[in-house]
Amino acid sequence: MKNTTSTQVMQQQIAKVIGKHVYGNLNGIEMKSLTDLNALTKLVVDSAKAGNLHILELITKKFSDVNGIPGGISVIALIEESHIALHTWPESLYATLDIYSCGANTYPDIAFKYIVSKLNPKKVKSWSADRGN
Amino acid sequence: MKNTTSTQVMQQQIAKVIGKHVYGNLNGIEMKSLTDLNALTKLVVDSAKAGNLHILELITKKFSDVNGIPGGISVIALIEESHIALHTWPESLYATLDIYSCGANTYPDIAFKYIVSKLNPKKVKSWSADRGN
Repeated sequence: MKNTTSTQVMQQQIAKVIGKHVYGNLNGIEMKSLTDLNALTKLVVDSAKAGNLHILELITKKFSDVNGIPGGISVIALIEESHIALHTWPESLYATLDIYSCGANTYPDIAFKYIVSKLNPKKVKSWSADRGN
Repeated sequence: MKNTTSTQVMQQQIAKVIGKHVYGNLNGIEMKSLTDLNALTKLVVDSAKAGNLHILELITKKFSDVNGIPGGISVIALIEESHIALHTWPESLYATLDIYSCGANTYPDIAFKYIVSKLNPKKVKSWSADRGN
């Protein structure tokens, strides 16, 4: 009984973390949708609003052109609830997207679908992972 | 035959993206290992070196204390090859880690193991995902 009680106390002390991570690989996107840093940044900002996620800080990067093909873009958001990361490869008409949020009242799946609907890929592979404790 | 040839041409035009994502949920970490912003930032920087990943920019955040328990930390790195994200929940003795890198000569699994070895969790659940096209 003593061990059981100790375990119960331990479980009470460890706060539950709810973590939901939705991510995917998006193939067959029009090149012009993958090269505009401002438009992709706005897309991430708008997706956060859609998913009830709160951006604290953004990092953006436009990579150099290669052989006349526009370079890729990365947009990463530190959000109060964890992070959003969008990376693009215009030369491959390809992007990947991660939306990972903690808290019961966040909707990473809605934020994910929002971005997918705007990028309009021909093919999407997506997964979700439980990032809770 | 015409269709086959068209497909072959299409495949030649689309550059191959190699993307490797290793991520995990780390339970049972000593609280003091989860609260030191400078130490956790150094850990991410050192893990990047271990995995041949190149940091372009870092975002760090220390969240507010709650009821006398130190707040969590987020360290997110935009790397040339994609991103690293470490989030901690001291109140739950818990952290999550994502290392996602592109390119044949990157070793996200080594970077992942480096951080895990330093945080020394009692329990690790980890996964890997193919983020290539």
